[in-house]
Amino acid sequence: MIELKEVIRTIPDFPEQGILFRDITTVLQNPDAFKFAVDKIADAVSGWDFDLIAGPESRGFIFGTPLSYILGKGFVPIRKAGKLPYKTISKSYSLEYGSASVEMHTDAILPGQKVIIIDDLLATGGTCKAIAQLIEEAGGEVAGMCFLIELLELGGREKNSGYDIKSILRY
Amino acid sequence: MIELKEVIRTIPDFPEQGILFRDITTVLQNPDAFKFAVDKIADAVSGWDFDLIAGPESRGFIFGTPLSYILGKGFVPIRKAGKLPYKTISKSYSLEYGSASVEMHTDAILPGQKVIIIDDLLATGGTCKAIAQLIEEAGGEVAGMCFLIELLELGGREKNSGYDIKSILRY
Repeated sequence: MIELKEVIRTIPDFPEQGILFRDITTVLQNPDAFKFAVDKIADAVSGWDFDLIAGPESRGFIFGTPLSYILGKGFVPIRKAGKLPYKTISKSYSLEYGSASVEMHTDAILPGQKVIIIDDLLATGGTCKAIAQLIEEAGGEVAGMCFLIELLELGGREKNSGYDIKSILRY
Repeated sequence: MIELKEVIRTIPDFPEQGILFRDITTVLQNPDAFKFAVDKIADAVSGWDFDLIAGPESRGFIFGTPLSYILGKGFVPIRKAGKLPYKTISKSYSLEYGSASVEMHTDAILPGQKVIIIDDLLATGGTCKAIAQLIEEAGGEVAGMCFLIELLELGGREKNSGYDIKSILRY
């Protein structure tokens, strides 16, 4: 049993004034804590029936790919615009200032496949909502979303109501 | 035994005309191939004595973090400028047109720690040379570099002569 909240470092005013940033690099540095965190996510998703794990660049790769390795499920990288080399579908979403977009290969998911979304952080929930839309446009089904950290006041869970959402740590 | 070269997809003219891009997303999609690739990297590094695994954003995270999980070694994320929340050291390096830089947290490596560098691809070798310099500036020692793919004609091995370099697949 590891108290992950004691391992995560909190950094004030990053990336902007007034934000308390939860820094998971101190978890990565500690192999026991990292294994514990990945295993907690594996436990959390064990009740879901799914074929693939989707994770957004870059921190979603950090937790999604070890999960893919240990559970024997394929990994679907969701990337920023222009990074994936094959044909893509993309989805834009609003940020506090401006907008961003996520892309996925057109053949990453076969129609009918069940996909879970893994990321380090659920904040406002815009990224994972866009990813869920990409999965559904490709004919897949979102079987759940699991996050290491959920920031309760930012409404990410409400923005993604209708999906099964789990988180390991809540602030 | 999986023939990884049969699983990797080759995409002509990405990101620029005349380049044959080796697309590893088709490996990620296939859980047996992904496990095989990570296990081959784990075998390749098994003779090295090291404490930490460093991997660059974003594809270095894909192979570095499962390795961290299975080998019980801490992971040091190397990121693009402005992405890491704590104090950083950075290193610029030249690209064909312009330059790029990589950053690492100042406390990611303790003096005397031995670090290996993991990435999907060794091309011109500029990124991993910059990472090696960051590790050494922090007082660490580069115990080796291992890549899933090495592009032999681009001289990455020569640019990093003096380091122990391994690769799983060569083109």
